[in-house]
Amino acid sequence: MGSSSDSRIMHGAAEILDSFSIPHEDQIISAHRTPERLNEYAKHAEKSKFKVIIAGAGGAAHLPGMIASHTTIPVIGVPIMVYNDKQMKKTDKNKYSAFGGLDSLLSISEMPTGSPVVAVGVNKASNAGIYALKILGNSYPEIKTKLKKHKFDQYTSVLKESEELKKLGLTKFVKKKFR
Amino acid sequence: MGSSSDSRIMHGAAEILDSFSIPHEDQIISAHRTPERLNEYAKHAEKSKFKVIIAGAGGAAHLPGMIASHTTIPVIGVPIMVYNDKQMKKTDKNKYSAFGGLDSLLSISEMPTGSPVVAVGVNKASNAGIYALKILGNSYPEIKTKLKKHKFDQYTSVLKESEELKKLGLTKFVKKKFR
Amino acid sequence: MGSSSDSRIMHGAAEILDSFSIPHEDQIISAHRTPERLNEYAKHAEKSKFKVIIAGAGGAAHLPGMIASHTTIPVIGVPIMVYNDKQMKKTDKNKYSAFGGLDSLLSISEMPTGSPVVAVGVNKASNAGIYALKILGNSYPEIKTKLKKHKFDQYTSVLKESEELKKLGLTKFVKKKFR
Amino acid sequence: MGSSSDSRIMHGAAEILDSFSIPHEDQIISAHRTPERLNEYAKHAEKSKFKVIIAGAGGAAHLPGMIASHTTIPVIGVPIMVYNDKQMKKTDKNKYSAFGGLDSLLSISEMPTGSPVVAVGVNKASNAGIYALKILGNSYPEIKTKLKKHKFDQYTSVLKESEELKKLGLTKFVKKKFR
Amino acid sequence: MGSSSDSRIMHGAAEILDSFSIPHEDQIISAHRTPERLNEYAKHAEKSKFKVIIAGAGGAAHLPGMIASHTTIPVIGVPIMVYNDKQMKKTDKNKYSAFGGLDSLLSISEMPTGSPVVAVGVNKASNAGIYALKILGNSYPEIKTKLKKHKFDQYTSVLKESEELKKLGLTKFVKKKFR
Amino acid sequence: MGSSSDSRIMHGAAEILDSFSIPHEDQIISAHRTPERLNEYAKHAEKSKFKVIIAGAGGAAHLPGMIASHTTIPVIGVPIMVYNDKQMKKTDKNKYSAFGGLDSLLSISEMPTGSPVVAVGVNKASNAGIYALKILGNSYPEIKTKLKKHKFDQYTSVLKESEELKKLGLTKFVKKKFR
Amino acid sequence: MGSSSDSRIMHGAAEILDSFSIPHEDQIISAHRTPERLNEYAKHAEKSKFKVIIAGAGGAAHLPGMIASHTTIPVIGVPIMVYNDKQMKKTDKNKYSAFGGLDSLLSISEMPTGSPVVAVGVNKASNAGIYALKILGNSYPEIKTKLKKHKFDQYTSVLKESEELKKLGLTKFVKKKFR
Amino acid sequence: MGSSSDSRIMHGAAEILDSFSIPHEDQIISAHRTPERLNEYAKHAEKSKFKVIIAGAGGAAHLPGMIASHTTIPVIGVPIMVYNDKQMKKTDKNKYSAFGGLDSLLSISEMPTGSPVVAVGVNKASNAGIYALKILGNSYPEIKTKLKKHKFDQYTSVLKESEELKKLGLTKFVKKKFR
Repeated sequence: MGSSSDSRIMHGAAEILDSFSIPHEDQIISAHRTPERLNEYAKHAEKSKFKVIIAGAGGAAHLPGMIASHTTIPVIGVPIMVYNDKQMKKTDKNKYSAFGGLDSLLSISEMPTGSPVVAVGVNKASNAGIYALKILGNSYPEIKTKLKKHKFDQYTSVLKESEELKKLGLTKFVKKKFR
Repeated sequence: MGSSSDSRIMHGAAEILDSFSIPHEDQIISAHRTPERLNEYAKHAEKSKFKVIIAGAGGAAHLPGMIASHTTIPVIGVPIMVYNDKQMKKTDKNKYSAFGGLDSLLSISEMPTGSPVVAVGVNKASNAGIYALKILGNSYPEIKTKLKKHKFDQYTSVLKESEELKKLGLTKFVKKKFR
Repeated sequence: MGSSSDSRIMHGAAEILDSFSIPHEDQIISAHRTPERLNEYAKHAEKSKFKVIIAGAGGAAHLPGMIASHTTIPVIGVPIMVYNDKQMKKTDKNKYSAFGGLDSLLSISEMPTGSPVVAVGVNKASNAGIYALKILGNSYPEIKTKLKKHKFDQYTSVLKESEELKKLGLTKFVKKKFR
Repeated sequence: MGSSSDSRIMHGAAEILDSFSIPHEDQIISAHRTPERLNEYAKHAEKSKFKVIIAGAGGAAHLPGMIASHTTIPVIGVPIMVYNDKQMKKTDKNKYSAFGGLDSLLSISEMPTGSPVVAVGVNKASNAGIYALKILGNSYPEIKTKLKKHKFDQYTSVLKESEELKKLGLTKFVKKKFR
Repeated sequence: MGSSSDSRIMHGAAEILDSFSIPHEDQIISAHRTPERLNEYAKHAEKSKFKVIIAGAGGAAHLPGMIASHTTIPVIGVPIMVYNDKQMKKTDKNKYSAFGGLDSLLSISEMPTGSPVVAVGVNKASNAGIYALKILGNSYPEIKTKLKKHKFDQYTSVLKESEELKKLGLTKFVKKKFR
Repeated sequence: MGSSSDSRIMHGAAEILDSFSIPHEDQIISAHRTPERLNEYAKHAEKSKFKVIIAGAGGAAHLPGMIASHTTIPVIGVPIMVYNDKQMKKTDKNKYSAFGGLDSLLSISEMPTGSPVVAVGVNKASNAGIYALKILGNSYPEIKTKLKKHKFDQYTSVLKESEELKKLGLTKFVKKKFR
Repeated sequence: MGSSSDSRIMHGAAEILDSFSIPHEDQIISAHRTPERLNEYAKHAEKSKFKVIIAGAGGAAHLPGMIASHTTIPVIGVPIMVYNDKQMKKTDKNKYSAFGGLDSLLSISEMPTGSPVVAVGVNKASNAGIYALKILGNSYPEIKTKLKKHKFDQYTSVLKESEELKKLGLTKFVKKKFR
Repeated sequence: MGSSSDSRIMHGAAEILDSFSIPHEDQIISAHRTPERLNEYAKHAEKSKFKVIIAGAGGAAHLPGMIASHTTIPVIGVPIMVYNDKQMKKTDKNKYSAFGGLDSLLSISEMPTGSPVVAVGVNKASNAGIYALKILGNSYPEIKTKLKKHKFDQYTSVLKESEELKKLGLTKFVKKKFR
């Protein structure tokens, strides 16, 4: 991730990987404040056994693209929009994103021909985690099996909610969920 | 791809895969005109040995997301913007995209939590091809090796252009390239 | 609707239908988490006596288009933007929409030629309800009659407000309405 | 439609209706240049047996909303973006849309609570035609039957294209379609 | 104005007119909920001595354009974006604008050739008031004189603030103004 | 107007004024290349008998706002988007607008409180001309009378087109107008 | 800066300059409310020893461009978006920016050929301060030296955060930073 | 510049510098295809006597930001939008920018706090050249003097055009300039 303020969002990717017991290395590397470290880390990654890199960044969001330009490891970019809420510390208040994450989404996806980064949705770090698992599933059949179970759990969870909606009726359902 | 008019763009992905001698199956499957076929194909893919699916679509661009929702195979989405040019046949003229591909980019990337699709840039099918190779590189070291060579070729090609620029001077260089 | 968090918005459509005593079936069906169920439900709907389907979804919002691709029943899509407010439970906080609903609006309206979905405004579920009534009015004259009364009630309600504004003057009117 | 320059796009809706042998009345009514006529026509429509109104307009695109505000007939709005091409007569050249149809799409969809208009995609008049058929299908079973056939024809047409693609290979397929 | 919820913004125009002792008539007229009344009012206005009409509306914002289409009186449109804050009553909460007022701004400014409405900035009702005074200044020299004084007052007020900034220094100035 | 390349668009305003026999002074004044001249001209205008100023500019489009800040004369701003076509001379080719005129529209309309400029639609110089006539109509009844006739002519012209459409049928009408 | 409400943002530039002990003159000059003063100040600046001007403004944001048009001193523009928060005084509440600062960013960057202003990111006044230091570094080597130290401090600060992340683990790190 | 296709735009900066007899070094350096070279070049630049770097790039446009992160030299970024025209060679046709340069503008301007890059308008390389001259003017008084002359030449050129407009009248002026 590009800065400590991104950790709140990127946590979502880590949670998914943890729930699948996948080891991961968490780092704060700023493309702009620590460019040399980015180079070193990318070279280290290329030589390591890393199979996927998830890179989250906000604003101009150069981190995913610059990491990708140094390695042949697939990089998944997470556009980060920091919004203004109460959980935010006062010193982070000025990080409010002016462009709703569109700046970061385009900065990640619109890479030139030859140097791809792929983007998940704005702030969708957990989806980056699942996509990483899909990539890993190609090499590790047990991960693919767990993914199928995860898919099935989603299925039953939606079904259960729909049943609850049927039982309560829409008005009571809304009250229970939001009031 | 979602329609025959997308073939002009998606060709870019096939060219990359061909240049790496990677076998691929090319299909036109419309999420909206052939929804049953989409289901069948997704189930077929899930059972097959496919390791990556590249799905390109324009406009509402539901194809990548719907394929992804049926499988655990990583899906790479290509947002397609058809623009109005002379190569286009008259019957395709009304396919001109009103939103510069932003509709398709968001329709591909902004998937709900739990069902990721990743997006490359608008019309960047060749980047989807290279990203597929990066994923395959995890399982096939010889692809990873070729990717490193491909990277190096890009490097030397830019260097050569920069040398040419130095030799010609900017004015002559521009004339040679664009006049 | 595509998820339980959409229920808060879609409730607006149910309220309108209830006030016209129109029976309706409420379901949570996720295009991405329960794609098989979507297929089954669409086939069930096509065989049923359903005359209109209202489908609300946020983000990539594939639900309306995918339902429409399976049936000949008119589908009204409601683009949903979840915004960040106090009524929202903590677990829903990360659903805040980055693109103000534009992603969902385009994902619903920009369907390919041959597979139409129509869109009402962002979060305007109640308008989807009224539009459903307009469609039903073609088959049931008593609904058409009630719609005319509903229109007339709106007319008199605006008139009453304008009278109140005249009586109070603008300053007092604003105080009464907003302070 | 709001002006004669819209006829080129709205023709797409008429073609669909004609292919289903549905009678339709074609009119140019400008919300801004002929507001009285809009009122009269809306009243005439409300008293007539019209079951659907398709209203296409560009720019500020008030026509669909103003028609809808006068009637209980469902109104389908078509946002029109006139683009700059050779078929356009010189006097129409200044009609080029600055906002890619987004202005018209929002002007049609973002109607206030109580007065719905629904929008199809920008310039998708043919989709408005098909949606009208879906609405009519509720009252006329033979239209519903024809719609199912139309859906099936789309299905087989995509299949045929996919077969052609398989037979020719992607490179020859692209050449055949676009060169 | 198009609805009572617009009164909070449109109040800004009334305040300016009041401070110049200009009589004005305040009305709530909905283009969509009271279209007949809009027609009547526009005809009444055309026959009256009204010299300017200020029309504010949000969302699809047809009011300014429809008023203008009926009269030769200059109409100033105010795009209204209702945002979500604490002063808002609970029943108005769902009026939150998805598009930041861009929908209303375009719906007001992008009128077809021949039927102009002019737009001030989003929510800038007070600017509409001042512009009305500029128009009236053509007929009433005493208004023009007052406008010059108003301009001069703005000038001295900015000067005073700049002096205060110089005296306090930036840090103390910010503390005084915002803490 | 801000530059000679704007003359092609601003010509539309002059044509309207000429057709009403209204004298007008045409000037090229650049806010950025001739700021001193802008100041002088604004002061000259303020002292003159000018009743309306129409200011057209593209890109950052400061001209309308800066003129308005110096005078009490109502200023109508025309956002100008130069697009790329064959009529354009080669030296103007690089003037192609990146933002479809949105930059200019916002730069004109979003003036701070106290300094209003009003905006017509992008490139709608003729609408600025008509709006100027509406303002002048307050002082010169004969202009108001001519405006009513102009309105009526628009009405009959639309009617005539609609009659033509009825007579030819839509298919022949489209052929006649666009082929 | 263009108004006292901009001081909260522009303070960020002053802080950076102060931390480098660079003298600066702080002024509130409104392009629209005090245009004469803008002219005078620009002429005064041109004759002074000023080496850089940082101009921050919101909305139509003409200040940076108009200052630049009068001088040969490099002008750095800061697009200002005032957002709605609790620190804001009630009288400033209506300053909430509708367009997320995009209006100001374009109004600053899209200057015509020949009159450049450069833009930093929305509300990034501190970056304008650092850029000013980079310009000054060309003339004063001691500033350049300090900039290198500032860069190094950023580097070590990110490193320290990354170390802390490693030590605490992501979950505890997020808790410490945001809860 | 980031690729040879940018040379057509960046040529504009070189022309300005040449007309002021300022030596400059022209390079093609791709942030993504030649990341190591970017590092080396940035270090070389930091040690050299370079006083300004102008970096132009399209799409994700990381070049300006990455150069800036390595040096204390002021970097001016030029967002590049390649549009589709006849001068473009066939192999460049797929470089057509989907987002009108907005992606590049935001990727350049929205740099994180501490690492500023400044942006000129989309494709405004000549403005980057002039801004570079303004920066150099701080160290070289003769450049400042030439800039004043350049400003004056612009002034007289606009004046001349305005005189020509007065003499020809608007209609003939437009014909001469555009037909």
